[in-house]
Amino acid sequence: MRDDADAADPSERVYHVDGDLVPADEAVVSVEDRGFAYGDAAFETMRAYGGDLFRWADHADRLANTCETLALDHGLSDEDLKRRIDETLAANELDDAYVKCSITRGIQPGTLDPHPEVDPTVVVIAKPLPRGGVDSEPVYDGPATIQTTKTRKPSSRALPADAKTHNYLNGILARLELRVTGADEALMLDPDGNVAEGATSNLFFVDGTALKTPSLDGPILPGVTRKTVIELAEEEGIPVEEGTYAPDAVREADEVFLTNSTWEIRPVARVDGIAVGGADSGAGGSGAGGSEAGGGATGDEDTAGPLTALLSGLFDRRVEERYYDGDRR
Amino acid sequence: MRDDADAADPSERVYHVDGDLVPADEAVVSVEDRGFAYGDAAFETMRAYGGDLFRWADHADRLANTCETLALDHGLSDEDLKRRIDETLAANELDDAYVKCSITRGIQPGTLDPHPEVDPTVVVIAKPLPRGGVDSEPVYDGPATIQTTKTRKPSSRALPADAKTHNYLNGILARLELRVTGADEALMLDPDGNVAEGATSNLFFVDGTALKTPSLDGPILPGVTRKTVIELAEEEGIPVEEGTYAPDAVREADEVFLTNSTWEIRPVARVDGIAVGGADSGAGGSGAGGSEAGGGATGDEDTAGPLTALLSGLFDRRVEERYYDGDRR
Repeated sequence: MRDDADAADPSERVYHVDGDLVPADEAVVSVEDRGFAYGDAAFETMRAYGGDLFRWADHADRLANTCETLALDHGLSDEDLKRRIDETLAANELDDAYVKCSITRGIQPGTLDPHPEVDPTVVVIAKPLPRGGVDSEPVYDGPATIQTTKTRKPSSRALPADAKTHNYLNGILARLELRVTGADEALMLDPDGNVAEGATSNLFFVDGTALKTPSLDGPILPGVTRKTVIELAEEEGIPVEEGTYAPDAVREADEVFLTNSTWEIRPVARVDGIAVGGADSGAGGSGAGGSEAGGGATGDEDTAGPLTALLSGLFDRRVEERYYDGDRR
Repeated sequence: MRDDADAADPSERVYHVDGDLVPADEAVVSVEDRGFAYGDAAFETMRAYGGDLFRWADHADRLANTCETLALDHGLSDEDLKRRIDETLAANELDDAYVKCSITRGIQPGTLDPHPEVDPTVVVIAKPLPRGGVDSEPVYDGPATIQTTKTRKPSSRALPADAKTHNYLNGILARLELRVTGADEALMLDPDGNVAEGATSNLFFVDGTALKTPSLDGPILPGVTRKTVIELAEEEGIPVEEGTYAPDAVREADEVFLTNSTWEIRPVARVDGIAVGGADSGAGGSGAGGSEAGGGATGDEDTAGPLTALLSGLFDRRVEERYYDGDRR
């Protein structure tokens, strides 16, 4: 199970910190950096395919939006950030990779109050991932099991959901709840009890012929893969509905899947212990939420429903065409 | 204006990081430390008086509670933590100091999911503060102005308020709103619109003869200074009420003050631009929330009402007796 990335030979890896490429084990920030002290930092998680970042413009836009929300005026151009990422990929000889780019408010004297003048700390981490595109190998171990958590997403009046920051404790608390059931991802609800998203993923489900996903009016991260899936569905003439949904709508759906930059599209086999789509294709019978569903690592790709499989295929072809010159098209 | 601390000659300062005393400018954590990546860390801010930590047992209890909420099983004893703090104070030749002690979940491979086995990173920072006790000099510049913010405290269903962690963005967003008015501290409301606390302080107010403060049933940090003030008031026979209050109750109060470990007890001169207690003792007339109230730095200690002044005196005497052998009693 991995939604991040971890690969061989990390001893030779280099990261980009504050303008310099440094060995991974020397990649550090001051204990007085606000990114450490307060999680006062914006970041993006991305995937590189064939040496190019997937939808960099969208990630750069969201990063800029996060920094605007934080009033973090770092003074760096998108081009400068892109150059640091490209240097990191090149230095690690990576074409297919997980990339994380963070911008902190740096070290500032004294109090919690952020100063307008910012000397940012920029950190770029890159790790190997399998090739994407047609016939690609998923980075996850089989379809996911998801579990509704007591931990809810904060209201956007407390923490704006469209800002992607180093304050990730809400998601960690949700994931901690999964230790009991062994589920892979949290099904997190908004303050009103409607479906929001996973700890590190957006959620889609299929009801009849329509593809449904919680609207960005709720406390939802505007995922780049989420946006890509909606575009692909609309191009294919599949009805897409962004709305407000009770958890039962997901539990009773014909198909459920999760999206994020590293997983791309990950089918969901079980929701709160119940097999998705009525047919019990998992290993553990119909037990509700039992730990026998642990890990969801059935390795059974057939649990992806027809619309999920169609969208996964379209996604792979889109990546193949745009990032690998379509040589497997 | 400082609610933290910043002092002379930081070039000679040393901090405690991961078991070792190191020069402050070499005090670093890995960019893969979860404390940096996710704010996945517990901390305490404390004050040392005459070389001893103020109410260490209470801080140690709250730190343990935070770590329990985070399922951060660091395996360190209170004595071990105390030893690292004492070593940091000694190495910096500090008797009167600001102290911050953080415990992170350290570096863990892969995903957002926290692993049960933790190799924690412990960081202790110490900086000079003025002597406390009788005739002590406040660390703040005059009474505070406070301003109700749009940014609200998160529900404890999203982020437990009694956990003191490196996820401090909610408070930072509130403080950012104060740039417009120049107020010193945010008056933050809970999700229902009732009074909660400041970004880094608890709030008290006086209505008639009773001392009132938001109850810990709401999303309130259980402050050690808050607890001390309640104890002192009860010992003095002052009625103390912990309840649920609308913002107007604070705006119409006879006296208002804030508490935290570094400020101790800080009087509030203005709430949302309105002078506390009806008498306009500030510098800027009766302008509502105007930037002329900026900084609240009137230097006018007389704005502390009688109960605030009484409690401040009692607090100073308590510190004098317990930490300076009562030599100025």
